[in-house]
Amino acid sequence: MTDGLLTHADVLAAAARIAPHAHGTPVLRSASLDELTGAELFFKCENFQRSGAFKFRGACNAVWALDAAVAARGVVTHSSGNHGAALALAARGRGIPAHVVVPEGAVASKLAAIEAYGAVLHRCAPTMAAREAMAAQVQQQTGASLVHPFMDPYVIAGQGTAALELMAEAGRLDIVMTPVGGGGLVCGTALAASGRDTGITVFGAEPEGAADAFESLRQQRRVTDIVPNTVCDGLRGTIGAINLALMQAHRVQVLLVSDDETLAAMRLAWERLKVIIEPSCATVLAAVLRYPGHFAGKRVGLILSGGNVDLGALPWRTP
Amino acid sequence: MTDGLLTHADVLAAAARIAPHAHGTPVLRSASLDELTGAELFFKCENFQRSGAFKFRGACNAVWALDAAVAARGVVTHSSGNHGAALALAARGRGIPAHVVVPEGAVASKLAAIEAYGAVLHRCAPTMAAREAMAAQVQQQTGASLVHPFMDPYVIAGQGTAALELMAEAGRLDIVMTPVGGGGLVCGTALAASGRDTGITVFGAEPEGAADAFESLRQQRRVTDIVPNTVCDGLRGTIGAINLALMQAHRVQVLLVSDDETLAAMRLAWERLKVIIEPSCATVLAAVLRYPGHFAGKRVGLILSGGNVDLGALPWRTP
Repeated sequence: MTDGLLTHADVLAAAARIAPHAHGTPVLRSASLDELTGAELFFKCENFQRSGAFKFRGACNAVWALDAAVAARGVVTHSSGNHGAALALAARGRGIPAHVVVPEGAVASKLAAIEAYGAVLHRCAPTMAAREAMAAQVQQQTGASLVHPFMDPYVIAGQGTAALELMAEAGRLDIVMTPVGGGGLVCGTALAASGRDTGITVFGAEPEGAADAFESLRQQRRVTDIVPNTVCDGLRGTIGAINLALMQAHRVQVLLVSDDETLAAMRLAWERLKVIIEPSCATVLAAVLRYPGHFAGKRVGLILSGGNVDLGALPWRTP
Repeated sequence: MTDGLLTHADVLAAAARIAPHAHGTPVLRSASLDELTGAELFFKCENFQRSGAFKFRGACNAVWALDAAVAARGVVTHSSGNHGAALALAARGRGIPAHVVVPEGAVASKLAAIEAYGAVLHRCAPTMAAREAMAAQVQQQTGASLVHPFMDPYVIAGQGTAALELMAEAGRLDIVMTPVGGGGLVCGTALAASGRDTGITVFGAEPEGAADAFESLRQQRRVTDIVPNTVCDGLRGTIGAINLALMQAHRVQVLLVSDDETLAAMRLAWERLKVIIEPSCATVLAAVLRYPGHFAGKRVGLILSGGNVDLGALPWRTP
């Protein structure tokens, strides 16, 4: 890991580091969705990744990059869900403690997963300030290393390994798109794509109700005062500073989608692809449907980021 | 295709015939389901197959095995859903007409799929006699070839290709299990497994409310008077004569599961594997959970047969 901005080499190093631990996930196609969108779509199924989301890649890279003595004191993070679960699972894999600071109001099934993977939960108010304060307190008390959900360079590099696999399997792609929350996945993807000779355009899909990355690119400064209002519980974080810099350096473009478009796309994926994806994840398909001018006739890789949905409300017994 | 009982060679021929048309589907693993069951489970995802079910394999093999002049007159079948959709899609791929006789009460989303693939629907009463009479009438009027959903030898051989792929990807397996309705999939699977030097035990999972295959094996005669009562809409057919003979020849064993066990297993698959599977398909996981003595410590391949569920009742708009 160099001191300056991350590079493609960091993603390659991450791929080697996490290979013994992470799943290689399949790439699905759908003739009917290709027909519907006029594009050739390649769905990289990170919802099948361990812990149910791409987040395991970055967490695993960060956990296994620690020196043994440092690692032994454990890791800590703040996360509304998927990163917390991923870090807990990665820490369990290395046999070290994990502490996860969770805001009130987080999705119940995600909290249950974090606990099931053996992490200690620390609850706090649902603000970034409260989360950071609680994480700092745990760090002080335990000596655990902070693994930030999207600003940690090892996390960013780890997230990029999904796109590496996607490009290896799908062959030439014109576009790769991921959801944008704090920016870890989209930046890792841009780093992965930057290793290709042919230009690949990287898009991020972001909810209209949490458009901080979109606004930050437009205003060319980090916009941090947006109060998120979206069903996409994984995309409520504010774009990180290193993430914004990487997005600008790699000319990542952000496309906005409404929650209704996202939920309609989620249903379409469940029906046509037969995969469980969570709302945050469906933003990418929603963007393909909303902005056909960018995608028609193109070979488009979509990172399906995760599948951790609360299924409790469905009718699971005989009628 | 020989005149006598089908053999492993027929499955190999089917694999070559359908290769340009069918998807190769991925095999998923789940550390948490392995832990829960004490077995090593390999899930062959035929819910990702074209038309959403393994049925496309058999239909495709039957459609492309027809002589051109015969094929031109079209194909006909009776089916409550997945086979009808699969035959419609296979016929469209060859550019020939498809007629599908559907019983009243079939799942709406499956009928919509059949029509979307361009087949002509013929509705009839929900009895096997009415279905067969209507299919015979369509045959007479159009000259179309009957492609029976599970007794057609090309259909049976085609269904076996899923197990071929599964065994190639998973390596040594002790057991392969599929759902049992009319017996096409389980027999094709037994034929596929019979080509291996090492013995693989083939199990079929069947609903308690449609236990005709179980009873037929137990009584050593084809039991045809059971009135099915199960949520597994794909498994209500009565075991075929050729299917029973093949099951006996290959020592296939049938395990019964209740509908509540099946729906609980379906939920578990949605949650842990992040895949949409239909109730009929979940019988295999239900059987692993109900009969641990057969599976603990074993390497077990499970054919996830299909994912065509009516998702209309779920909340798809913002709260």
